[in-house]
Amino acid sequence: MDVRLAVTGFGNVGQGLATLLQQHSEEYVDRYGVRLLLTGVADSGGGAVDPAGLEPADLLQAKQAHGTVAAAARGRPGLRGEDFLSAASGHVFVEAASTNFIDAEPGWSYIRSALQRDMDVVLASKGALALHWRDLMTMAAERGRIVFYSATVGAPLPSLQVADRALLGAEILAFEGILNGTTHQILTAMAQGATYEEGVRQAQEIGIAETDPTLDVDGWDAAAKVAIVANAVFGANLRLDDVARQGIRGVTAADLEHARSRGQRIKLIGRAQRRDRTVTASVAPEPRDSSDALGRLRGDDMGIVFLVEPLGRMAITIESGGHGGGISTAMTVLRDVLNLARDRAWSTPSPG
Amino acid sequence: MDVRLAVTGFGNVGQGLATLLQQHSEEYVDRYGVRLLLTGVADSGGGAVDPAGLEPADLLQAKQAHGTVAAAARGRPGLRGEDFLSAASGHVFVEAASTNFIDAEPGWSYIRSALQRDMDVVLASKGALALHWRDLMTMAAERGRIVFYSATVGAPLPSLQVADRALLGAEILAFEGILNGTTHQILTAMAQGATYEEGVRQAQEIGIAETDPTLDVDGWDAAAKVAIVANAVFGANLRLDDVARQGIRGVTAADLEHARSRGQRIKLIGRAQRRDRTVTASVAPEPRDSSDALGRLRGDDMGIVFLVEPLGRMAITIESGGHGGGISTAMTVLRDVLNLARDRAWSTPSPG
Repeated sequence: MDVRLAVTGFGNVGQGLATLLQQHSEEYVDRYGVRLLLTGVADSGGGAVDPAGLEPADLLQAKQAHGTVAAAARGRPGLRGEDFLSAASGHVFVEAASTNFIDAEPGWSYIRSALQRDMDVVLASKGALALHWRDLMTMAAERGRIVFYSATVGAPLPSLQVADRALLGAEILAFEGILNGTTHQILTAMAQGATYEEGVRQAQEIGIAETDPTLDVDGWDAAAKVAIVANAVFGANLRLDDVARQGIRGVTAADLEHARSRGQRIKLIGRAQRRDRTVTASVAPEPRDSSDALGRLRGDDMGIVFLVEPLGRMAITIESGGHGGGISTAMTVLRDVLNLARDRAWSTPSPG
Repeated sequence: MDVRLAVTGFGNVGQGLATLLQQHSEEYVDRYGVRLLLTGVADSGGGAVDPAGLEPADLLQAKQAHGTVAAAARGRPGLRGEDFLSAASGHVFVEAASTNFIDAEPGWSYIRSALQRDMDVVLASKGALALHWRDLMTMAAERGRIVFYSATVGAPLPSLQVADRALLGAEILAFEGILNGTTHQILTAMAQGATYEEGVRQAQEIGIAETDPTLDVDGWDAAAKVAIVANAVFGANLRLDDVARQGIRGVTAADLEHARSRGQRIKLIGRAQRRDRTVTASVAPEPRDSSDALGRLRGDDMGIVFLVEPLGRMAITIESGGHGGGISTAMTVLRDVLNLARDRAWSTPSPG
């Protein structure tokens, strides 16, 4: 059937999703039995809406030429909020705007409106999950809605799918991971002799670090991911502030050299563990053996290790070879949408 | 609701499953909303059947004392085949007997009977999958039945769950893995100076190698796993014989030393790749860097790496710390049963 997507945010992730739909839409019909339509896209300049499906190429071209989807054929400058959701009338609300760790807005308002409208929700931004976990999940449960968010915890790492389906019947005691690609890239460069500043610049040049890398280098991004994974796998209710947090600004050349002399590398590790009913979580740089599941990773690779009773350590890692970048987050959003369509049994042939 | 399981085979896996149900049955009711009942168990001596649920402790005790579940309270010597399935009247047929690569019997007949009876199927043995893939899957599809088999491809590695849910929307081009714990254990011992014979004996002592280790050391087991994963992720129809196969008997001390001098270790690697419409598959020993996702593993650890377009290399590994053993296969069967119950929406509260 036709699955209508309403998307807020048209940066790397939103544009990546549009590009995937532009290139592979027919393939998804064949492989998954669903036609994914962008029926609404909003950015800071306004929105574009067409219940029959917007043209991805037109949206991408308008964004590139004019900086906003409001300049597209079906664009409406200033369209946002309830008016946007109402006009887009989607099955799935996709939140792909920048993460806001102060008050999670405007995403949090959009999410609540979408749930009120009985839309399922796929999140690529972390704000609402890291600040309003319990309220969000309670509201979704009350409305019978699905909320997927695997793009928020180190896309395209399938941490949540593995915890959800692959560890059924087992007990997750703890996890640890390299969940932030930017700091991993910077630490890798520093281990090869770069200064911190050079490492940041390199990460910016290859497009994975923001102009202001604060959220990455001070560990906010990794801490939010730890909180979200801990909430999902432990049934916890951590907020961003509950995660003890130390970033990488304090890592010195001497630290790196000391680690190297012991066959180790310094990684920014996020971890959480459950003891009895208490979940504790932290983010901090630490030395890891280079043959360790996480210590062996480099550049913007990511990985997570679950300590599972009685199975042992289950590691999942992604080595992108440097060409992961923006498209992998968009692909993870797509993965959530396709899994959601399957769980909703939307993949029946459309009557048309 | 009550989910009735009919199990054939009561060796390590069957007894492990009974032990898990004995210890955790109430927990599964709480966590997953299903009560798992063993309504029938058969081994070479006969069967035991009770539509209200057999006592796991009684089955385990009978097996230990008398060598067959037919000696249990509800046991019936000689009960097997159609009579057994009919009396057990389960929702799910669990095939946990020894793998037979000659003709896949008696498992293959049991599976067909179970599908005819509209039972779903969970497989822990590889014979039918490695010899009759297409017939099995066609019959299951025609009857609208679910067939899960994640215990057959290197339990508890979640290869199939990851391919199924975590890589939706992406394209798997190839995979490679360490899928056989016994040969991995032997090669690890040999890398530490043991002879081949000592390595085999050690693996037998820790309980992972059979008295006749032929199926492991000649690569049959790994080849069957490669065929099954390739069939699942590529939609192929490989049979065991389609996998080019070289075991570890030919690995010499000189090979190991040569690898070690280059910082490498020899691993038995199973792999398959798709080019256009052709899937090729093989099993052979090869040297791997010790910082490689697979090369770093030891003992009876297992791992698989998917080459995924456009994400890169996604690795999943299990380090059991030596105490994986039999229970991990039983846990994987349990995982399949719980996922199946969820997909069937059986986890509604029972009316009782």
